[in-house]
Amino acid sequence: MSRFFSSRYASLTPYTPGEQPKDMQYVKLNTNESPFPPSPGVSRAVAEQCGKLQLYSDPESTVLRVKLAEVYGVKPEQVIVTNGSDEVLNFAFMAFAENLIFPDITYGFYPVFAQLNNIPYEEIPLEEDFSIDPKDYVNQNKTIVIANPNAPTGLCLNLSDIEQIVASNSDNVVIIDEAYVDFGGESAVALVDKYDNLLVTMTFSKSRSMAGARLGFGIGSKALIADLNTIRYSTNPYNVNRMTEFAGAAALSENDYYMANCHTIMENRTWTTEQLQKLGFKVLPSKANFVFAKSPRISGEGLYLELKKRGILVRHFTKERIKDYNRITIGTKEQMEILISAITEILKEQAL
Amino acid sequence: MSRFFSSRYASLTPYTPGEQPKDMQYVKLNTNESPFPPSPGVSRAVAEQCGKLQLYSDPESTVLRVKLAEVYGVKPEQVIVTNGSDEVLNFAFMAFAENLIFPDITYGFYPVFAQLNNIPYEEIPLEEDFSIDPKDYVNQNKTIVIANPNAPTGLCLNLSDIEQIVASNSDNVVIIDEAYVDFGGESAVALVDKYDNLLVTMTFSKSRSMAGARLGFGIGSKALIADLNTIRYSTNPYNVNRMTEFAGAAALSENDYYMANCHTIMENRTWTTEQLQKLGFKVLPSKANFVFAKSPRISGEGLYLELKKRGILVRHFTKERIKDYNRITIGTKEQMEILISAITEILKEQAL
Repeated sequence: MSRFFSSRYASLTPYTPGEQPKDMQYVKLNTNESPFPPSPGVSRAVAEQCGKLQLYSDPESTVLRVKLAEVYGVKPEQVIVTNGSDEVLNFAFMAFAENLIFPDITYGFYPVFAQLNNIPYEEIPLEEDFSIDPKDYVNQNKTIVIANPNAPTGLCLNLSDIEQIVASNSDNVVIIDEAYVDFGGESAVALVDKYDNLLVTMTFSKSRSMAGARLGFGIGSKALIADLNTIRYSTNPYNVNRMTEFAGAAALSENDYYMANCHTIMENRTWTTEQLQKLGFKVLPSKANFVFAKSPRISGEGLYLELKKRGILVRHFTKERIKDYNRITIGTKEQMEILISAITEILKEQAL
Repeated sequence: MSRFFSSRYASLTPYTPGEQPKDMQYVKLNTNESPFPPSPGVSRAVAEQCGKLQLYSDPESTVLRVKLAEVYGVKPEQVIVTNGSDEVLNFAFMAFAENLIFPDITYGFYPVFAQLNNIPYEEIPLEEDFSIDPKDYVNQNKTIVIANPNAPTGLCLNLSDIEQIVASNSDNVVIIDEAYVDFGGESAVALVDKYDNLLVTMTFSKSRSMAGARLGFGIGSKALIADLNTIRYSTNPYNVNRMTEFAGAAALSENDYYMANCHTIMENRTWTTEQLQKLGFKVLPSKANFVFAKSPRISGEGLYLELKKRGILVRHFTKERIKDYNRITIGTKEQMEILISAITEILKEQAL
């Protein structure tokens, strides 16, 4: 830390992204990326924008917002697009959060954003089975953020539970982070015209194969989106570059490709879950593009390290409550077969 | 404003970007973009990344930082890259600013960042001739931000003045915003190893034809950069997308192309200045890719509106002290000829 660093931020614990070791080519199952490349229209759209890079991007990202509004059945004024969904989440914390609650086991960036913005927060323990009890969030009169499906558990609340939470906290914003919704969840976007306190956030990083392009968005009432734009225009009005804007619009024009990929990933998830269960793992029932699993025969860290030795990366968290588990991204069938073979081998060696 | 908007931000006045009207094709001289497209290597680098968009970008942007360090003669640990230079400026305000001073006429985002982060600030009036008096910034014991060359004036401090300011405020960070330095200014990067309180920020938006790719960077001591990374990892660790990272690296490999373009723009600036002076304009001596000029024969707003009618956009600011002026981006010779013809015509009509 330099001697100039603001005391406001001196005690911040930044977010730790998944590792990206460069020593060899890994089977990368640690950051919930899609194993499939973007659709052909994306490259074409990007190539076209490359010749115009000397011009600023549209600070309103109009082409993309109109397209998102069509796909999600809302008005363009109900959509904000951002440099990944982390940005819309941070803007939402800035704009709306006063007293904040979220689960103790969830996306690790929520407590970081809360600390960054000096927002008091409380972490509500998940149930024993790692599910969220909706009752913990009903009638709280607090700002609420829930990842649905939750990460790293993969567990999902149904829409009626979400609605009850939103309806019963009508004086506070409820943020539903749907980064993983396309892998079997039910979107709360259906409720945004009914509840002016609901903000839904999503990303192109998972189901739409564009983690490297950085594109997220939020959908809510016009008034909520206008407030987020006040923050955005006071922070970084040209937050989405023109290649990413048009890549996103092109992806939405080829949405069937991405939804078919999600279907394949869901099939691979079923297969992987069955294989892990055959190997004695406890696997939470996931609606996301990852599974959260533990073995009674090897520690979470032990398995993570053994897999890494064999060129396979998964995500291990050191937090006490989940340290026996690993979060494993669902990739192609071939990748999952490599994973299962490696785990089979590791468990055999353990048994010797 | 929604009923949920935080009182912290309720009185924010966001930044107003230059207009981007879509009703017709304008000669666009209002946002200081380069008139030249990026070099050929940029498209190739972007096309290569397009096939890997499903993978997150490198949160350390290592390839690009190593390249920047080479070009600027510093170590990679002395460089941070950001989503445009607005982002590094905002991070620097967050990290280092306590009592802040900057000129009354300068980049319009400084007061916005100050308000956003609740930092008290004072605006120091420029001299009558719009120059910065270095004495106003010497021995102030305050955080200082100076755009050099300044915008929208185009006027430049020399390096010895900058050094005196940095040296005499050794307990506070001095931020030198060099967005326009490649058009004739002297960079303070030469001083970063001598002064641990100096942060220099730059952008690919002007001299390197990549406004639409969103790429900025900061150079300073390792400790300052580490602090900025603490903020970055608590805000948006994947802030630079992979297309932009590799576009930036490719541009640096073809740096001669961009420096030749800067030379052309400086020639066009000389020509434009002379033509405007022949038409009776007062033109400030600019070291940037724009000129700041006023006519005794037509108001600043009047000229702006007449030019817009004729399909030419320039930037007019309503702030009292500079409302007689327009900021005119220097484009190609052809664009500047169109501008001068239009102004000649407008002034003739005025005289009738």
